[in-house]
Amino acid sequence: MSVNTFGRVLRFTTWGESHGPALGAVVDGCPPGLALDEAAIQPFLDARRPGTSKYTTQRQEADQVRILSGVFAGPDGTQRTTGTPISLMIENTDQRSKDYSEIAHAYRPGHADYAYDAKYGIRDYRGGGRSSARETAARVAAGAVARLVVPEVTITTYVSEIGGDAIDMGNFDAGQIGQNPFFCPDVEAVKRWEKLVDDCRKDGSSLGAVVECVATGVPAGWGAPVYAKLDADLAAAMMGINAVKAVEIGEGFNAARLRGEDNADEMRPGAAGEGPEFLANHAGGIAGGISTGQPVVCRVAFKPTSSILIPRASINSAGEETTVRTKGRHDPCVGIRGTPVVEAMMALVLADHKMLHRAQCG
Amino acid sequence: MSVNTFGRVLRFTTWGESHGPALGAVVDGCPPGLALDEAAIQPFLDARRPGTSKYTTQRQEADQVRILSGVFAGPDGTQRTTGTPISLMIENTDQRSKDYSEIAHAYRPGHADYAYDAKYGIRDYRGGGRSSARETAARVAAGAVARLVVPEVTITTYVSEIGGDAIDMGNFDAGQIGQNPFFCPDVEAVKRWEKLVDDCRKDGSSLGAVVECVATGVPAGWGAPVYAKLDADLAAAMMGINAVKAVEIGEGFNAARLRGEDNADEMRPGAAGEGPEFLANHAGGIAGGISTGQPVVCRVAFKPTSSILIPRASINSAGEETTVRTKGRHDPCVGIRGTPVVEAMMALVLADHKMLHRAQCG
Amino acid sequence: MSVNTFGRVLRFTTWGESHGPALGAVVDGCPPGLALDEAAIQPFLDARRPGTSKYTTQRQEADQVRILSGVFAGPDGTQRTTGTPISLMIENTDQRSKDYSEIAHAYRPGHADYAYDAKYGIRDYRGGGRSSARETAARVAAGAVARLVVPEVTITTYVSEIGGDAIDMGNFDAGQIGQNPFFCPDVEAVKRWEKLVDDCRKDGSSLGAVVECVATGVPAGWGAPVYAKLDADLAAAMMGINAVKAVEIGEGFNAARLRGEDNADEMRPGAAGEGPEFLANHAGGIAGGISTGQPVVCRVAFKPTSSILIPRASINSAGEETTVRTKGRHDPCVGIRGTPVVEAMMALVLADHKMLHRAQCG
Amino acid sequence: MSVNTFGRVLRFTTWGESHGPALGAVVDGCPPGLALDEAAIQPFLDARRPGTSKYTTQRQEADQVRILSGVFAGPDGTQRTTGTPISLMIENTDQRSKDYSEIAHAYRPGHADYAYDAKYGIRDYRGGGRSSARETAARVAAGAVARLVVPEVTITTYVSEIGGDAIDMGNFDAGQIGQNPFFCPDVEAVKRWEKLVDDCRKDGSSLGAVVECVATGVPAGWGAPVYAKLDADLAAAMMGINAVKAVEIGEGFNAARLRGEDNADEMRPGAAGEGPEFLANHAGGIAGGISTGQPVVCRVAFKPTSSILIPRASINSAGEETTVRTKGRHDPCVGIRGTPVVEAMMALVLADHKMLHRAQCG
Repeated sequence: MSVNTFGRVLRFTTWGESHGPALGAVVDGCPPGLALDEAAIQPFLDARRPGTSKYTTQRQEADQVRILSGVFAGPDGTQRTTGTPISLMIENTDQRSKDYSEIAHAYRPGHADYAYDAKYGIRDYRGGGRSSARETAARVAAGAVARLVVPEVTITTYVSEIGGDAIDMGNFDAGQIGQNPFFCPDVEAVKRWEKLVDDCRKDGSSLGAVVECVATGVPAGWGAPVYAKLDADLAAAMMGINAVKAVEIGEGFNAARLRGEDNADEMRPGAAGEGPEFLANHAGGIAGGISTGQPVVCRVAFKPTSSILIPRASINSAGEETTVRTKGRHDPCVGIRGTPVVEAMMALVLADHKMLHRAQCG
Repeated sequence: MSVNTFGRVLRFTTWGESHGPALGAVVDGCPPGLALDEAAIQPFLDARRPGTSKYTTQRQEADQVRILSGVFAGPDGTQRTTGTPISLMIENTDQRSKDYSEIAHAYRPGHADYAYDAKYGIRDYRGGGRSSARETAARVAAGAVARLVVPEVTITTYVSEIGGDAIDMGNFDAGQIGQNPFFCPDVEAVKRWEKLVDDCRKDGSSLGAVVECVATGVPAGWGAPVYAKLDADLAAAMMGINAVKAVEIGEGFNAARLRGEDNADEMRPGAAGEGPEFLANHAGGIAGGISTGQPVVCRVAFKPTSSILIPRASINSAGEETTVRTKGRHDPCVGIRGTPVVEAMMALVLADHKMLHRAQCG
Repeated sequence: MSVNTFGRVLRFTTWGESHGPALGAVVDGCPPGLALDEAAIQPFLDARRPGTSKYTTQRQEADQVRILSGVFAGPDGTQRTTGTPISLMIENTDQRSKDYSEIAHAYRPGHADYAYDAKYGIRDYRGGGRSSARETAARVAAGAVARLVVPEVTITTYVSEIGGDAIDMGNFDAGQIGQNPFFCPDVEAVKRWEKLVDDCRKDGSSLGAVVECVATGVPAGWGAPVYAKLDADLAAAMMGINAVKAVEIGEGFNAARLRGEDNADEMRPGAAGEGPEFLANHAGGIAGGISTGQPVVCRVAFKPTSSILIPRASINSAGEETTVRTKGRHDPCVGIRGTPVVEAMMALVLADHKMLHRAQCG
Repeated sequence: MSVNTFGRVLRFTTWGESHGPALGAVVDGCPPGLALDEAAIQPFLDARRPGTSKYTTQRQEADQVRILSGVFAGPDGTQRTTGTPISLMIENTDQRSKDYSEIAHAYRPGHADYAYDAKYGIRDYRGGGRSSARETAARVAAGAVARLVVPEVTITTYVSEIGGDAIDMGNFDAGQIGQNPFFCPDVEAVKRWEKLVDDCRKDGSSLGAVVECVATGVPAGWGAPVYAKLDADLAAAMMGINAVKAVEIGEGFNAARLRGEDNADEMRPGAAGEGPEFLANHAGGIAGGISTGQPVVCRVAFKPTSSILIPRASINSAGEETTVRTKGRHDPCVGIRGTPVVEAMMALVLADHKMLHRAQCG
């Protein structure tokens, strides 16, 4: 079975291969009456778009989204969601499938090639087919719709580490995130990363990254115990992004090293009419799978891109020894362009849980 | 909405509160014809059972499971699954609800108390009600059923770190895991942890832990792209366990610090009739969300138990300032007894994905 | 795969066999704060309970329900739902499994025996095991919970026809329904049916029935196009009841014989602040899968009980010729006791759709 | 919530409005390796296509399907499914939205207009938007894919009654079904219906119809008790088709009028290596929700098209009195073109259940 749908009440289904004619998403369950046109989606796709700096793949894709259904100009002339499924399509325009002829029958180490063949016995090898991170464009488009469902939430997402070189939180400036090709909030780190990523790219190698995502404005009470906990759904959402190998909520692994009294987030009465004031946020805004009203904090590790120019030992589909060097055009650090994808998945999970909460608790 | 069901084809639903009359699980979709009686489940519950050493809570629960449906003595006299839902029930016998009267109206920092009240407006405060880790007994029982579906798989689960003190992999001895109260494969660490946990318990504090889980024998091809990836489902399964704050697959966060050529798992031809031989397993046995045939490796961080004797600032349900000291009986390190739960969730996810794979790929 | 869960947001899972120790339901997703104790459920089980007249099976079951989880005495002392799963259990007390030894290896014509064996290769033959209509006790219990979610709705359910003998709608008196063993609103029909059913019972034969269900108070707007239409979900709910072979909404099959102008439900302005006044209800309260505010009308056909004393040709599990005469204790007309089940399923579908509507449309 | 996905393991999601740019379906979970190109789908769309006779709407739509993902030319050059989602798109080319300006603010009696507005507060009124039967083109396309999953099954679907005028089963000739514009197996009925439908069309009125669907070759054992019974899933599938008001399985309502001994399908030993030979098929091939190996028989009632030229009393969106006469182009008998839709839904349900069965029973 293949499961290309994500979400519980607000659900989206994506389709498309890296080198097929197009890819897309169908967003189902969206509330009616939200203002939505292509211009509301495009900026998020532009943030993820390839070919915009030398630090990302040189594949040129306009990534223009079209809305094919689910919207209508209401009484005031504004195009709005109607509550019916929203079909989003992005055409592929810069496929160079010939780049992939060499790997038609060779399995790239670290890639899904072998696993797909083992599962399905057939695979669209061009650019990795369905396993390509190109699929995440559809998630970003869907995420732009999800944001409209949670206007009370602000999401900040940034790269906090590349190749083991972390930002200095003392330099944190949210305003910088959109000003550099790394989604980096620390101008000092930007300078180091320019050289780090460029050197790596020239070496034909690749680097991993850590991405952090913080959502503020989430009220207390979203989440669905015990198997659709807000953190469990976030973990699934993030771990399902291409190249992600680890997810932390709040203190994450560090929580395993704290003592109970240090990890507990003490509370005191908040302002009149507000929830409690928390004195810390080790929990990352989630307790018992339910939001506490504090910022929801998530951290995600991306492995280095598996497509590298450095030759690696492998086998071909006949089971024979071979050596693979992945030509084509690739991101030297897939975590960078993963940043808008992490943000989209956060928006999708929160929107879904807002609606889930409303279903049960009115 | 509340979502107390986990799984896609092999699904289980759990119910019950910490201090209610009983708790249980309904396992649905289990293949017919598998030999199953209470004796096949009890050892796993016994491994998780409280009160067996001074390093765990002193609550005394026999945790005797009863099978109420879904089995029948087939032609050979062996009791077997019939393909209908398997109802498992465990009675609670040692509730001391009066211990909790103090916290009826005070929110324990780090606990789900406040979040549940914010969501539902009503909460069974006795022992944390539904948010108690006692619910995981039902998962362990369900996991015992799941194991029968994947007899080809062997799962090894152990605590690799308590309170920041890690085992030495050079001392790793799987045979030790069942021989000490910490599920620890390193006898040297056992000695240190005895003192560490005991001291902590005496301080009225608590410790976090890291649990590792390795499943061997998983064939290549299980997993369901792109939103029910094997690793995404594992991430949800593990993050949904009480007190878990982080999940890694394979190299996990460390993958973000490796270069592409180091992280790629090279392959060479395997033995005749076998899949490839991998030269490393940074991927943790999963690529593109599909198993590769290598061991599936997962690492989980448990925060320190939130129930501690050290007073913490908090508020009560009227929003007033208070101080909370959680009496009752608690695990000084909830990660220890989380170990059989991690193993159960691994079994459940693998069994589900084996069946999912069979649905699509025959 | 076995699917013992019904519902989308308000979901219930049932378990149990006819002659096992117990059967039950887990109701998940119920809103918090609803007053619920056993006394709120028992009357509905009593209505369905066997052995209360000579027109139903003589099996004696108290059908006492126990609530094992999901409720707690709130601040006002009233036991209320907490939003966590509600586990309901009914013990079986009058199993006479020896009655079934003869059919252990013979397939009763019209029964699920052969189909279960063909599917699962093993089957609990005692009383039909899981395929017994005894399972519907769990649905009735779950339905009693669902009613609490839709207090604005009134459901009236009655038998309109037994063995081809229909009530006269001119005699319709809703007050009669609870006053006779047939759930019949027509006192004249009651008299005829007493003889009809009793004669049939003495013949060792059985009769079919038609049950009608009308829900008033359903506001316009419930329903979920296009694959969870309110009528599609009702059709699944009703067709899934044991022995049901047909479902109609509103005009049903008769609609196929009307012309467009006769079948259209004309509207005129309703009272101030109300929806339209409809001049007819051929649609049965549902248009495009969404409720219109008119009464939701459903009609269900039950086949005659397959368990009869009249010998029928069949085969045994070895594939050899045999003759089957089903002794045991059986309903001469299973549709009668199906009436509270139809009502329960209507309540469950409406409650689910109320919550679904709230999720999307706030 | 909106639920535009159907199926459990083989799932499809449809999108699109009657007068939007396009409509489509995403089929997810399809087994890999099945030969699939547009030519395998187009004939089924052509059978449903409007404008091919004077007995259907005059809207001219080529209904050309494009496959946008999920297929790849395998080693033998044949385009095959890869196990990834199959995106199917059909462009709308003959929208005449101006026909609908009059009904922008008036609710057509019998239509979903009022219900959609009551639910969503906004609606694409052009041609009924999402509630239009045009959506069923996407189901027919998805059904063509489903057929590939169940090559062992043969499905025969035909109109058995129009406007109360039924075929004579003595004249049944399956070869005739594709030879007339009514999907009618009785040449005598064809002659009568030509006049009946044409007269009705000239009157500006419409007629209902009954469609029957018989699937042979379904092995014993498909179906999923107790809430995804094969008949319950069929009931949902059929009742969810636009204009359907009733569904029968096998003997249907007539079963309510038979006695137990007459309704039971007796069995005798079948040929060597085969299942039993059944002496009747009152059950319509399904017992206990599981297929018996007999033909699966389903009967569906379509109401007369609600779009008629005869004026009907109604209200407008301001709640004021008005009269509606639906101009546009409409089918005088929507049941005729519903025939390929019924067949597609049968294929989809059977394919899904074949895969579900494989998941649990191997």
